Amino acid sequence: MGTRLSDSEQYAHLWGTPELAEVFDERARLQSWLDIITALAVAQARLGIIPDGAAAQIAAHAHVQELDLDLLAVETRRTSHSMLGLINALHQVLPVSARGHVYVGATVQDVTDTWFALIMRDVGSVVWRDLRAIEERLLALAVTHRDTVMAGRTHGQPGSPITFGFKAASWADEVRRHLQRWSEGRPRWLVGQLGGAVGTLGFFAPRGAELRAEFCAELGLGDPGISWLTSRDRLAEFGAQLAMICGTLARIGNEVYELQRPEIGELREPTTGDTVGSITMPHKRNPEGSEHLDTLGRLVRANVAVLFEGMDGGHERDGRAWKAEWVALPEVCLLSGVALGTTLRLLSGLVVEAEAMRTNLDSLGDQAASEQMLARLTRRQGRYAAQRLMHDVLAPGSRDVHEVFDVLVAEGVVTEQDREQWTSWEPGDAGRMVDDVIARARRARSVEQSTWT
Amino acid sequence: MGTRLSDSEQYAHLWGTPELAEVFDERARLQSWLDIITALAVAQARLGIIPDGAAAQIAAHAHVQELDLDLLAVETRRTSHSMLGLINALHQVLPVSARGHVYVGATVQDVTDTWFALIMRDVGSVVWRDLRAIEERLLALAVTHRDTVMAGRTHGQPGSPITFGFKAASWADEVRRHLQRWSEGRPRWLVGQLGGAVGTLGFFAPRGAELRAEFCAELGLGDPGISWLTSRDRLAEFGAQLAMICGTLARIGNEVYELQRPEIGELREPTTGDTVGSITMPHKRNPEGSEHLDTLGRLVRANVAVLFEGMDGGHERDGRAWKAEWVALPEVCLLSGVALGTTLRLLSGLVVEAEAMRTNLDSLGDQAASEQMLARLTRRQGRYAAQRLMHDVLAPGSRDVHEVFDVLVAEGVVTEQDREQWTSWEPGDAGRMVDDVIARARRARSVEQSTWT
Amino acid sequence: MGTRLSDSEQYAHLWGTPELAEVFDERARLQSWLDIITALAVAQARLGIIPDGAAAQIAAHAHVQELDLDLLAVETRRTSHSMLGLINALHQVLPVSARGHVYVGATVQDVTDTWFALIMRDVGSVVWRDLRAIEERLLALAVTHRDTVMAGRTHGQPGSPITFGFKAASWADEVRRHLQRWSEGRPRWLVGQLGGAVGTLGFFAPRGAELRAEFCAELGLGDPGISWLTSRDRLAEFGAQLAMICGTLARIGNEVYELQRPEIGELREPTTGDTVGSITMPHKRNPEGSEHLDTLGRLVRANVAVLFEGMDGGHERDGRAWKAEWVALPEVCLLSGVALGTTLRLLSGLVVEAEAMRTNLDSLGDQAASEQMLARLTRRQGRYAAQRLMHDVLAPGSRDVHEVFDVLVAEGVVTEQDREQWTSWEPGDAGRMVDDVIARARRARSVEQSTWT
Amino acid sequence: MGTRLSDSEQYAHLWGTPELAEVFDERARLQSWLDIITALAVAQARLGIIPDGAAAQIAAHAHVQELDLDLLAVETRRTSHSMLGLINALHQVLPVSARGHVYVGATVQDVTDTWFALIMRDVGSVVWRDLRAIEERLLALAVTHRDTVMAGRTHGQPGSPITFGFKAASWADEVRRHLQRWSEGRPRWLVGQLGGAVGTLGFFAPRGAELRAEFCAELGLGDPGISWLTSRDRLAEFGAQLAMICGTLARIGNEVYELQRPEIGELREPTTGDTVGSITMPHKRNPEGSEHLDTLGRLVRANVAVLFEGMDGGHERDGRAWKAEWVALPEVCLLSGVALGTTLRLLSGLVVEAEAMRTNLDSLGDQAASEQMLARLTRRQGRYAAQRLMHDVLAPGSRDVHEVFDVLVAEGVVTEQDREQWTSWEPGDAGRMVDDVIARARRARSVEQSTWT
Repeated sequence: MGTRLSDSEQYAHLWGTPELAEVFDERARLQSWLDIITALAVAQARLGIIPDGAAAQIAAHAHVQELDLDLLAVETRRTSHSMLGLINALHQVLPVSARGHVYVGATVQDVTDTWFALIMRDVGSVVWRDLRAIEERLLALAVTHRDTVMAGRTHGQPGSPITFGFKAASWADEVRRHLQRWSEGRPRWLVGQLGGAVGTLGFFAPRGAELRAEFCAELGLGDPGISWLTSRDRLAEFGAQLAMICGTLARIGNEVYELQRPEIGELREPTTGDTVGSITMPHKRNPEGSEHLDTLGRLVRANVAVLFEGMDGGHERDGRAWKAEWVALPEVCLLSGVALGTTLRLLSGLVVEAEAMRTNLDSLGDQAASEQMLARLTRRQGRYAAQRLMHDVLAPGSRDVHEVFDVLVAEGVVTEQDREQWTSWEPGDAGRMVDDVIARARRARSVEQSTWT
Repeated sequence: MGTRLSDSEQYAHLWGTPELAEVFDERARLQSWLDIITALAVAQARLGIIPDGAAAQIAAHAHVQELDLDLLAVETRRTSHSMLGLINALHQVLPVSARGHVYVGATVQDVTDTWFALIMRDVGSVVWRDLRAIEERLLALAVTHRDTVMAGRTHGQPGSPITFGFKAASWADEVRRHLQRWSEGRPRWLVGQLGGAVGTLGFFAPRGAELRAEFCAELGLGDPGISWLTSRDRLAEFGAQLAMICGTLARIGNEVYELQRPEIGELREPTTGDTVGSITMPHKRNPEGSEHLDTLGRLVRANVAVLFEGMDGGHERDGRAWKAEWVALPEVCLLSGVALGTTLRLLSGLVVEAEAMRTNLDSLGDQAASEQMLARLTRRQGRYAAQRLMHDVLAPGSRDVHEVFDVLVAEGVVTEQDREQWTSWEPGDAGRMVDDVIARARRARSVEQSTWT
Repeated sequence: MGTRLSDSEQYAHLWGTPELAEVFDERARLQSWLDIITALAVAQARLGIIPDGAAAQIAAHAHVQELDLDLLAVETRRTSHSMLGLINALHQVLPVSARGHVYVGATVQDVTDTWFALIMRDVGSVVWRDLRAIEERLLALAVTHRDTVMAGRTHGQPGSPITFGFKAASWADEVRRHLQRWSEGRPRWLVGQLGGAVGTLGFFAPRGAELRAEFCAELGLGDPGISWLTSRDRLAEFGAQLAMICGTLARIGNEVYELQRPEIGELREPTTGDTVGSITMPHKRNPEGSEHLDTLGRLVRANVAVLFEGMDGGHERDGRAWKAEWVALPEVCLLSGVALGTTLRLLSGLVVEAEAMRTNLDSLGDQAASEQMLARLTRRQGRYAAQRLMHDVLAPGSRDVHEVFDVLVAEGVVTEQDREQWTSWEPGDAGRMVDDVIARARRARSVEQSTWT
Repeated sequence: MGTRLSDSEQYAHLWGTPELAEVFDERARLQSWLDIITALAVAQARLGIIPDGAAAQIAAHAHVQELDLDLLAVETRRTSHSMLGLINALHQVLPVSARGHVYVGATVQDVTDTWFALIMRDVGSVVWRDLRAIEERLLALAVTHRDTVMAGRTHGQPGSPITFGFKAASWADEVRRHLQRWSEGRPRWLVGQLGGAVGTLGFFAPRGAELRAEFCAELGLGDPGISWLTSRDRLAEFGAQLAMICGTLARIGNEVYELQRPEIGELREPTTGDTVGSITMPHKRNPEGSEHLDTLGRLVRANVAVLFEGMDGGHERDGRAWKAEWVALPEVCLLSGVALGTTLRLLSGLVVEAEAMRTNLDSLGDQAASEQMLARLTRRQGRYAAQRLMHDVLAPGSRDVHEVFDVLVAEGVVTEQDREQWTSWEPGDAGRMVDDVIARARRARSVEQSTWT
């Protein structure tokens, strides 16, 4: 059993998803490395660098289930070399004639960086799919609740009305920008690495670039044009985008967390029958999914800081920054995967208490109407006079909106005929903004791929 | 005088540039806010919300030099309101008839967020210009030193040869990706904010969206479509890109710092005659610019973390995250500006000691040649046997490459005729990669705008 | 005017205090540096290294008001040397005979690090004083509200009762631990620096250590025993403690922020008559102080990260880490000073709505009593059976506690006689814990100094 | 197999130690939780809250090897409750009569926070032991190399001489301060948690405090006096100290990394015969341990930032901050354990190339002597004139020290008799500082416990 909760049988589901575990677990990683080694051999055979037969043998045997994983681990530790254990284990299952043609001219980082590109492709697809599904749900919420009025809140204090659809549209709009960025980053991220000892492909010159192109194509990756051994902006960017995505999801989670307070009671995250909120307080309904989104956001941000710090790689290879990525990048991906899945579940079953929203708003009395009353008064008196009057009338605290209107009548500013209009409120142009967000999202969705790869 | 070194007369130049000071100093900021207030009035007059005459008066008097700045500061503190001081000071210089029409229906964040967009535009232009100038210099270095051989270094240890042009091309390629990202982010960043109390433009419904469009157009900004009061991904993204840019510049700085060590002596940053490196050790030549790039990179990263953390804004406005941006965003911009300028100066006068590069490489003996010797041996014997032989021959430490060749002759692997070729080395495909980077950059430069706005 | 909001006339009060401005503004800093230069001269004269007369002249003229600050700034930039500007400006006001004896054998970092120690002393005193005052207020709140019942809240959900005094005591206890740490760190922080070029005091050997002892004593600082030019744990520790203190203050601020929601209405931060919460929503009462504590906490944490990163200083001086401290350490101090002052004001006028606390608790019905009902049931039936019964009885949602009791009667678990006791609740041992915290704090306060220096 | 490299068979040794794996792996954690549950039962039996027999049964069966771990995992997920899986699995192996007495009145956080205290005790002991061993080795290096001269380096540039012992003493002094802090923090960290639902021990009042005291004593932990459910400074402090310790170790690692550059060649980290530095460059000797210290330092810092952020816990329990600690605290501990072990190995076999140090210093010519030449000249002419003369003489670059002396003779400042003294150099008071550090460390070590618990 592992030393981290993330690998605990009991708690692993909080820090990873089964789908991403298939990208990141040891066997998947080793198979990915073997695939890269195979692609290298195939490309080399194509250029006549190694015999076709050797490449065929490597392709036939480079499967994790064939290898002696104990030997692999022992050899890794014995040699203190990150890749020799794997190579030695692979040799064992290869005919002697092929052994000399494994991993020719490559360096550890060629394998692990290309692996990173493959990870970014796999994780990238999941992110794209989940983000689009989240957007879909948010748009649905925005449509359904376009006119579901509720109190807007600033600095934690309720005030003028918005609609819940407006809130959902604000989330959807943010998610749409993440989708844009995710598209833009793709060609930068999905490139292979093949540089050899110091990045110049000295082993293969003058056919290094040609080999790299074959190698990348074999894996379905782009060709970087130049080695990027200490040029790590790709990883920093990828991580930064995930941190921003998790920031959005944490924002959604925190909103549910706050609005689920029973004193507010406007949103509620779904629970299943078996969930036990609290042993000591049996009927507590904790916003566990929502708060987990915040937890994940914190951890992702912290790990992305490591990727940013890693951009100052020294010379042609820098183990200090690079090894830190080995930990931080998978961590960022796995936690982000959980955050996306949790958000999807949260939004799918989100309970919107429209009644409570309305009741809370009504209980605000004049506060809900004050912005629009001020707007009307401003049209009559100018902002300056209107504001002074409103400040005097409203300052003592919240009152019934009709009392406020009585004062305005007494001041001679309005007449009794205006009462109905002046004591009501509308959620401004919330609905129109919702429509705008939905239209833009629908447009974008209609022209983009539903899958990323 | 200020409380921060960044505002010290003595040291301000280390933490800001005169050009950016003109964006960020108090007068510039206030003028920018006044411009926004004016744009609002103009847009409102256009829609008939306020009288044309009032808008004209506001436009005529909203100039920082007309305002009583002491009053402004006093009123800000007295009201504990971020904008009332400015409004009251503006009232003072307006005819009474216009006073009621200042800042109608807007909220503080409408001004400050729109200001952020203007900042991103101004800073964005500087970044675009400087990044392109840096790329130009890097490309020139790559061209000039395409074939200037030097030792590649991994884990701080010299090994197979590269060229200095290859190093410069790796930097240039990274800068090119920053330029790509900078272009892509632009339409997301340069949008105004106009939402009123809770983002719904309740003051102006049903003409809020129309007003916002006018307002944004008046300032040359994009229309966001929906308020983004607690949707802060734009700022996080902008900051993240600057942190990545500064990461690249720190990488360049650190490389110069290390290669300027007299024991290596391959690069040297320019100095001016008056520079005093050390009082106590009079002839020290410190890599002050280079090391400052690292310092700036650290500070920028730290402040960008604040912008990321700020993405979890609560409800319709959240002062906790928002006020932190007031400090962090300008800090990130100002420090990045210094980093760009410092890098430009550093690269413009960078001394490349080609002779020392060559000498250092020669002194490595067989180490410089070992990768290619291994490559040749691999072609004859397969990687497996070749590696074992080389490991035995080379393990004891660096030797003269001819001694190594003697062993290979003794082993019967090579004949004396091969000596010249086997004891020499080439910097692999470094030159070809340089060409590729240059070609791509030239292509991109030929079709893009040289200015950002 | 400065380029940062922190040095804006309008907003400086949000990012610094007048008291700390007197520690950190340019004149104060320069005077502090002059004091250090004077102390060095005095110590050197005492050991016969420079003439007594020279030291006397330096002491007589090393006053910031005598210096030409423009010259100082120009010279700093001309020489690119951090200290030469000051020295040259000082020379100007000294008789020629004394000029040769200024700053003998010292290096920039000797001055700036010793300045850091003086800063830590000055800031340390403010922190000690304010933290103790905050503790005093918290203890008073704990005493007054020892038995003011309110709902405890977990995961944002109200449940079993606590008292407000219990909450205040938890804060006070945390503050007490900060005071402990602040005492413990003091001897590590308040030490001078005198090392010369590379820390060995080569200029003065074999009397270097003796000189350093005199120099430190002259300034009232401890003697470090060995130079700490790249040994920066002192600053990291000092910063970490301030980040932790600001973490506590942010925790208090956030609690007020949340409990000030009108839907909860249990706490309210004080406002003054002139405060304008919102222009667009005139009667908003925003928790501005509370939320600012969170803002400050974020910024302090971010800057402390820089101090931690700076611990990997290279060799005998490392400008990369060191210059970053120049920005980060003052920032941390100034922001912490604001946080302490803001908290003091917040706590001094904090409105505790005991009635609302009670009402909110009562409205929870059985939820408030469920923990204790479970406790009583457990005593009768064991936890296992009790929990199952309670889970069934309570699961459907909150109900009147008497209805729940009716079910228990029906189940034959209790009899009607138990009703009063079983349907009531008490805040557990909250009061006893409050007493314990107060007693320990009083004990500690009675034996410690009220001032730090 | 796990999803993280930290739990990979192949690479786990880079991210954890076998010793700490025994603290953190799933079985160890579960056993620790069972021990806590047992201690609670024993304490409750002692107070008559549960029957003695039940406590005895719990103590007899609460062993991880008795439990059905699959059931445990399934139940954890089914109930979405962090502790119910364990409790249900424990019930299975208990007689029915005891089941009702397990985990009475406790909450998840009581178990996990008390577990944190036990972790801090276990990890604390390892840290104390390893830090002291590291100090011992550093002191030995300081003694041995008290007078081993080498170039001091500032800003990466060699200059005046120091000794290697001086460098080691600077490290040792920093480690000593960590030991001080580690002692001071201990009583704050090693306290249990028992609060029940909201921290008031409502289940047990008025005997809650008494029960907590028994419970803590049973586990050998201190009694906190008041619940600390959202008072997380203890964890932040513990983490901060580890981050600082790892900062020091990274500093040592980076120093070795830089001085191991063959162009400098003054230090070399030990290697074992089987280590393969590079496949493509067979004789590379990479400073793998040294650079790993930097990698670990980065990751630890990042995770500690999470602990700091967690200090703003809301109300009486806050899952957002708390669950993040579950990941971050173990991560910090495990990585720190590796860093300590790696440093021990590094220092135990560190190769100090005294000859190279001397040679490098000699090759500096006048640079090594300039500080002391300036000192001598200053004594004759005052600093002002001396500095000007030296600046002129030395500015053009490094020269033979005798040439410089010739100029001074020509200037009439010195006579030929002074030559020997003026052209030599000494490492200042480095030796005396070494002695001071050693004496203080020896004193401290002689009065402190060699074990922490």
